[in-house]
Amino acid sequence: MKIRFFNGKILCMEPQMDIIQGELHTTDDTISYCGPSIKKINHETFDREIDLRGNLVMPGFKNAHTHSAMTFLRSYADDMPLNDWLHKQVFPMEAKLTAEDIYTLSKLGIAEYLTSGITANFDMYVDSEPIARAAMDTGFRTVIVSGLNNFVDSVENVAKNYETLNHFHPLISYQLGFHAEYTTKEEILKGVSELSHQYKAPVYTHISETRQEVTDCLNRTGKTPVAYLDSLGLFDYGGGGYHCVHFTYQDKDIFKEKNMSVITNPASNLKLASGIAPLCDYLRAGLNIAIGTDGPASNNCLDMFREMFLVTGLSKVKEEDAASFDATNVLKAATIGGAKAMGLPLCESLAVGQKADLFVLNLRKPNMQPENNIVKNIVYSGSKDNVLLTMVNGKILYENGEFFIGEDIGELYYKCNHIIKCMTS
Amino acid sequence: MKIRFFNGKILCMEPQMDIIQGELHTTDDTISYCGPSIKKINHETFDREIDLRGNLVMPGFKNAHTHSAMTFLRSYADDMPLNDWLHKQVFPMEAKLTAEDIYTLSKLGIAEYLTSGITANFDMYVDSEPIARAAMDTGFRTVIVSGLNNFVDSVENVAKNYETLNHFHPLISYQLGFHAEYTTKEEILKGVSELSHQYKAPVYTHISETRQEVTDCLNRTGKTPVAYLDSLGLFDYGGGGYHCVHFTYQDKDIFKEKNMSVITNPASNLKLASGIAPLCDYLRAGLNIAIGTDGPASNNCLDMFREMFLVTGLSKVKEEDAASFDATNVLKAATIGGAKAMGLPLCESLAVGQKADLFVLNLRKPNMQPENNIVKNIVYSGSKDNVLLTMVNGKILYENGEFFIGEDIGELYYKCNHIIKCMTS
Repeated sequence: MKIRFFNGKILCMEPQMDIIQGELHTTDDTISYCGPSIKKINHETFDREIDLRGNLVMPGFKNAHTHSAMTFLRSYADDMPLNDWLHKQVFPMEAKLTAEDIYTLSKLGIAEYLTSGITANFDMYVDSEPIARAAMDTGFRTVIVSGLNNFVDSVENVAKNYETLNHFHPLISYQLGFHAEYTTKEEILKGVSELSHQYKAPVYTHISETRQEVTDCLNRTGKTPVAYLDSLGLFDYGGGGYHCVHFTYQDKDIFKEKNMSVITNPASNLKLASGIAPLCDYLRAGLNIAIGTDGPASNNCLDMFREMFLVTGLSKVKEEDAASFDATNVLKAATIGGAKAMGLPLCESLAVGQKADLFVLNLRKPNMQPENNIVKNIVYSGSKDNVLLTMVNGKILYENGEFFIGEDIGELYYKCNHIIKCMTS
Repeated sequence: MKIRFFNGKILCMEPQMDIIQGELHTTDDTISYCGPSIKKINHETFDREIDLRGNLVMPGFKNAHTHSAMTFLRSYADDMPLNDWLHKQVFPMEAKLTAEDIYTLSKLGIAEYLTSGITANFDMYVDSEPIARAAMDTGFRTVIVSGLNNFVDSVENVAKNYETLNHFHPLISYQLGFHAEYTTKEEILKGVSELSHQYKAPVYTHISETRQEVTDCLNRTGKTPVAYLDSLGLFDYGGGGYHCVHFTYQDKDIFKEKNMSVITNPASNLKLASGIAPLCDYLRAGLNIAIGTDGPASNNCLDMFREMFLVTGLSKVKEEDAASFDATNVLKAATIGGAKAMGLPLCESLAVGQKADLFVLNLRKPNMQPENNIVKNIVYSGSKDNVLLTMVNGKILYENGEFFIGEDIGELYYKCNHIIKCMTS
């Protein structure tokens, strides 16, 4: 399958941020050409040629932290204190989920990612198999990480999934991880650490999301969550932390020393009143920064445009400096930074040989005009409304508002509504 | 002209927030029916009948503070300190604008409002006539307020505009105002106060946007901006303050006593690193709260969905309470609160007799599913991508991505790009 995008602008992201006038070809799952317009295509035939009409192709966003299947709890329990939200609403409802529910609800999340130009997600949930199936059936790229804790999953199962899901399907990969320090006893943590050393693999977890979490860990272990988990050898092969809102200087140094990624979730941190992450400190320290939406129960939308504005806007107000965390750094975090954090080195940019994970952004909307600076327009003004087409692994999964994900979208909506209705009736 | 919206959901906003299954009719500029589905329309004929297919009609958002014509500076000067932004970029560029430029650039702003379900704006800029013309020619509702200061406009001209622009065209009204305390000398402020008493009219201004502004005013006058301006009698007939980020308790009490509206601009306050307004304090005090995007040079997009999420998200993180400023209060601020602040009592809700200012929101998008709670879905997950149709004063100005604003949108984009190119070349 060969597809040609022509007559448009291309933002390759690497090796430089320049926007070129040109065209891009995909051959099966890979980018086979990206450069100036080719006047005469030498006997080359394409299965499809797409006239961009001056619009922009750019690398897909990487949603570096989410719980896709939590779509069923979107707008189900908001505007309430965090503890009530988690213990009275989220946990009891999650206990009722079947694997088939998780499969269906994850597909709804994937459909929304596509509307926001997101081409890969880093998905943590209670059961990995239905997440993998949802990704394969829709054609979406997913990196899975276990929500392992005292009640969910086991070290043995994580090991089994690591070995099987990393050699299972081109769209699926699996990273070691666990839910969080405050939900996971030391015996399990040590088990994950052993796996990390055995596979020489990075480890991912929720970390320092709330001040309470840090205080409790200090009281329990005498260390911050970062220092405590590091002391168990969990970060010896790198990895990443979701949230990273309440770090000490020492925590930041550990992250730097162990080559860990900060995966920030600004909308969720606002909505659950967790705080504003000191992202400029991480940027100055040279840490890799990635962006995630977190799950739809705590955000509630899955929209990288909103997250990008929050990354820069919240950094500016926290630093009291309107020059903080500029648009270029934000866009890098949403694309390259995410790919690095997720272990997707072939999904970073639009260079030849990279995977064909991209989207077409409509510049012919009022919010993208005038075209003083397209990168700043995307970061400060971009919206789902600008996403014309999203391609994952060389296949178009979303175009002009229609989904090509192997299931009728209306049927999918019906099923998702049915799941929550059955649970609450 | 009679239009019928049927087979949908209706969020009237008043007298209650319930969503009804039903239909809505407009007759010329007014809502003539809003209620349950009518099985048999008795000999009633419509110029157009629109099948909502289950989607939602709701009152248009009111953008209660903006500078529409600043579209030309979108993404022109970002990621820089506030003072440099204002003095090195904004002011010198604005000095080059012609009335025709302001007319064209305001139309681009209006086009973007329509994509976000916004049906009226409260527009402050250096010249009122071209703003009024842009509103009339596109069919958009605009409340104009002068950017009067030491260098722009005059008290005499404000008086003239107040008398003419309030009886000029059904879509246009004019409120008394001035740019800000820190740009306007006392002689002018006293002149505005006299006009306010003469017309018994409210007064609007930027107020307490930055900490520096408050400190400078204290040093100069011994009073905060709110207390100082109030001491000149400027708030004796009410009005409103744009931004209201740095208020003392006394400032809040003055606003309450004088029946002033707080018009918050959260995205702009983040982007320019001004701070986070204590909106929950205002809510608890019973102040009327409205929401504005501010101008596209400081935001940069004109999107009420983003502002709504910021109102609740920033309130939650500021209060450290995830229950703060709930979705219902946010939606009220974006509609009724805006109408109250702007002096548009006939644009508050979808009741019979109110102006036909409304939009259709697409519920058949992943971000609006499942339908656990539509109001929360709108506030937490809504996007421009959900806006199917926007009607102002009974006329459809935006539908399925197309604009009906009296000028080809491509031509408008071209003109706006041309304006900034000529200025910078």
